[in-house]
Amino acid sequence: MSPFRATPPITTEWGHFEFTVDDGVATVTLDRPDKLNALTFESYADLRDLLAELPHRGDVKVLVLTGRGRGFCSGGDVEEIIGELQKMETAELLEFTRMTGAVVKAMRECPVPIIAAVNGVAAGAGSVLALASDFRLLARSAKFAFLFTKVGLAGADMGSAYLLPRLVGLGRATELLMLGDKVEAARAEAIGLASSVVDDDELPAAATALARRLADGPALAYATTKVLLTRELDMDLGASIELEAITQALLMTSKDHHEFYAAWSAGRSPQWTGR
Amino acid sequence: MSPFRATPPITTEWGHFEFTVDDGVATVTLDRPDKLNALTFESYADLRDLLAELPHRGDVKVLVLTGRGRGFCSGGDVEEIIGELQKMETAELLEFTRMTGAVVKAMRECPVPIIAAVNGVAAGAGSVLALASDFRLLARSAKFAFLFTKVGLAGADMGSAYLLPRLVGLGRATELLMLGDKVEAARAEAIGLASSVVDDDELPAAATALARRLADGPALAYATTKVLLTRELDMDLGASIELEAITQALLMTSKDHHEFYAAWSAGRSPQWTGR
Amino acid sequence: MSPFRATPPITTEWGHFEFTVDDGVATVTLDRPDKLNALTFESYADLRDLLAELPHRGDVKVLVLTGRGRGFCSGGDVEEIIGELQKMETAELLEFTRMTGAVVKAMRECPVPIIAAVNGVAAGAGSVLALASDFRLLARSAKFAFLFTKVGLAGADMGSAYLLPRLVGLGRATELLMLGDKVEAARAEAIGLASSVVDDDELPAAATALARRLADGPALAYATTKVLLTRELDMDLGASIELEAITQALLMTSKDHHEFYAAWSAGRSPQWTGR
Repeated sequence: MSPFRATPPITTEWGHFEFTVDDGVATVTLDRPDKLNALTFESYADLRDLLAELPHRGDVKVLVLTGRGRGFCSGGDVEEIIGELQKMETAELLEFTRMTGAVVKAMRECPVPIIAAVNGVAAGAGSVLALASDFRLLARSAKFAFLFTKVGLAGADMGSAYLLPRLVGLGRATELLMLGDKVEAARAEAIGLASSVVDDDELPAAATALARRLADGPALAYATTKVLLTRELDMDLGASIELEAITQALLMTSKDHHEFYAAWSAGRSPQWTGR
Repeated sequence: MSPFRATPPITTEWGHFEFTVDDGVATVTLDRPDKLNALTFESYADLRDLLAELPHRGDVKVLVLTGRGRGFCSGGDVEEIIGELQKMETAELLEFTRMTGAVVKAMRECPVPIIAAVNGVAAGAGSVLALASDFRLLARSAKFAFLFTKVGLAGADMGSAYLLPRLVGLGRATELLMLGDKVEAARAEAIGLASSVVDDDELPAAATALARRLADGPALAYATTKVLLTRELDMDLGASIELEAITQALLMTSKDHHEFYAAWSAGRSPQWTGR
Repeated sequence: MSPFRATPPITTEWGHFEFTVDDGVATVTLDRPDKLNALTFESYADLRDLLAELPHRGDVKVLVLTGRGRGFCSGGDVEEIIGELQKMETAELLEFTRMTGAVVKAMRECPVPIIAAVNGVAAGAGSVLALASDFRLLARSAKFAFLFTKVGLAGADMGSAYLLPRLVGLGRATELLMLGDKVEAARAEAIGLASSVVDDDELPAAATALARRLADGPALAYATTKVLLTRELDMDLGASIELEAITQALLMTSKDHHEFYAAWSAGRSPQWTGR
């Protein structure tokens, strides 16, 4: 999406989650199933850096984020992270919280659409990773738990107090973030936190189908939609309309828009290239 | 609502839609039923200019926007608009997208409440016209389709990426704008995109009843409510409360507020004048 | 929460509502049941001043706001307030509207979580008091009515046009504020205006249970969550993530967070102190 890159190499092996790319679809699989895919200092850092690299790779049009085993992501590991936080001095604590926030900032600012395939519990930081994605496909047994207050911390973490009210409204966000209770999949769908809910064994196929649709479609149009949705949350009406006017004029010069008209005129389906 | 106007005449005939005024209720009927009321360069321009004139007329307290035949508005005409866009140079494209955005900006900034009586499909720009209205009454057979990505363009068009998340939340807005799929009337109502859904043959009466209520009621109070709702989306808490305090003090001096108290004291119904 | 206070005394008796404190839980009971607890100039002023004092008391971790009898709060008294407004000059009107707005500003800026136990009709200013609370527990027979336009005033009052769209979306907020019609409890819950609805006779116990949970839990974490939710409505993504990073680093040094880890390590329940 912005492939200009000069000296830094593209990382070829990621050490703290499984990463694959298949015909435009990148997949991150959190891979500590015995810990419900709890995050470590290293997996936060790798997520942050992968998201910065993704738009430079040139081979990725959509990212799927999922977990191996029965959990999606249980958040920061209690022993490996919370235990270590007890010993840290002020500057180290801030280095850590800035890193976790940087993951969410990178997810929202990355023009590549992100699908969270939430295969099980999404708790703490895991719930915010799902929240910061563009689509949340939930297995019927999946649950959210913004459980930060249950460990004595603010329910506002990694941007959750910014994002959640903008998805489900201030009243429901207050309840979810202050109390930290579990949210079942059906409830998540009812309030606009889940994009859709499918039977557990259908989740991989549902995520693949949506990812393929996004990768095979007009990817520049999709990416631009994501970027403007993200930015216009922080813009006023007049500036938003101007940004959309300028952006849409640009996209009217794109190959995919011309292809739409050519295909329509010829009575055939468009062949999207994402350019 | 702001009837001061000096030299420019008020337009007496609109050439690209049907326009009527009946005792405070203006009605725009998009009138190309064979094309599902697809918009043309001329109908966009006339909508923009009509909305600027409306508050100056002095005889309009509410606007109803609807379509003739089985569609509400199918958006920009594929032949007459998209076909022409293929041949335009940069500056012309921007002139066009700024005009379409200006229609939405005028709808939101016009103090006159706008009722979209969505009698059938509202697609592309047609869906944004409904979105930018204050009330959306849907016929049961009506559908929304923010189908911009299906023609290779950004789902953010005419302010849709600003408005839609503020009606239905960021998650649902992402799905609707990125994918561009159809939204049935019942679904639109469930997520807060439709104000209400009625049987197809009851739509004209429902729109008339709401329009009459708004035109016959305390129109200054209604118009002020719309203006503050619009502006406070872009304001912070403290400034919003101050704006409301100043505005409400002003309205406490209005004829309609005094009339309420006089009527209440006398045990009769208030006779609103909208002043 | 911010107990520094030097010269001004803490008010010991409130003259215009009932006020009690019980082991961290403060309760304001509006107490004019024969008037459905209509507000007077004095009860507005006392609410504003109580909310400023609450964080200085040191003995209050949560506030419950409720009404005696069959109503919650019917808003400004028609005789004692609206009648007087008819005689006021400009500056007095503004002094009044600024006071009512200051109540809502104080509710949102007070770090103490506020539970509205809505035992009956919440109308006009009463509906905004509930709206500005953090939790809204509704008796099944309770109703909202943002009825300002029905008295000839703007539906935007005391911050309602800022808050309501951020809870229920712009479309629904437009309908509720412009028309001012009653909203039943079930509808309020469906659109995210009520946190939950319980049978009428169960409301006191439900409010007490939630209040006790908040007062006995990690109160600093709860209060911080409220403050960030409030502030981030007016902040952009990047600033919000930075604020959360800094805040969370601070809370990682708190007694309650250390207590969580100690308790988890020892396999016991945490003993929260709210510090």
